[in-house]
Amino acid sequence: MTTVTQSPHPLRALVESGNHEGIEELLHPDVQFRSPAVHTPYEGRETCLHLLGHVVEVFEDFRYVDQIDTGNRTGLVFRANVTAPDGTTKAVEGWDYLTHDEEGKITEFVVMARPLSGLIALAQAMGARLEADPVPKG
Amino acid sequence: MTTVTQSPHPLRALVESGNHEGIEELLHPDVQFRSPAVHTPYEGRETCLHLLGHVVEVFEDFRYVDQIDTGNRTGLVFRANVTAPDGTTKAVEGWDYLTHDEEGKITEFVVMARPLSGLIALAQAMGARLEADPVPKG
Repeated sequence: MTTVTQSPHPLRALVESGNHEGIEELLHPDVQFRSPAVHTPYEGRETCLHLLGHVVEVFEDFRYVDQIDTGNRTGLVFRANVTAPDGTTKAVEGWDYLTHDEEGKITEFVVMARPLSGLIALAQAMGARLEADPVPKG
Repeated sequence: MTTVTQSPHPLRALVESGNHEGIEELLHPDVQFRSPAVHTPYEGRETCLHLLGHVVEVFEDFRYVDQIDTGNRTGLVFRANVTAPDGTTKAVEGWDYLTHDEEGKITEFVVMARPLSGLIALAQAMGARLEADPVPKG
């Protein structure tokens, strides 16, 4: 067996330390964010930070459980719970699929999640928050 | 920049060559399959093969677009289209998140997909097929 010595991805390190403000530094100004729920990508760092600011509030008991790296891509697997607006809590398993430029800035930030029940709760919880606090216009 | 020399994962190689029968050899007898739609894992090779047999029929224009490897885990990113029972076709982006034992057999086969519209079409198309051809009892 090969022993893989793996550094925690900077995003993982920040999230695990609770330093969400540091995330801005990791994002390319033109980062594309593809949410697990919505088809159309979101564009730009400010928009991405706005969304992530709500995501960290929506996820309960969030923890990263795996990291896979190859070249300029990293996959961070997570588990969490999400409480939908009707009060029911669902388990979610997902991953952050990150692509980086030569300087290590994240240029693509894709999130996928399962199962359907968890993703629906996530979409509903995020939808309610974004209705009250819409994504800034570019 | 580091140049990563990467062999295609055997599952990717089989799917891309159209040899779906070879997939059985890759799966551990007790493989756990976590579908993108359903919360409860499916258990065992026969069940997993039954599900994958329908999955390959449901996905149109299926292609793998990325592969990430670390240790005994591989992430295969794919894109495809899915036509729901009502006839509407949706784009899906997803990944197969695979964990292997020491012999390289797949012990965990997790699939996640986005966006919600694509996952719903996938769940509906799979649901219709599994109603007509149920998963075998263990």
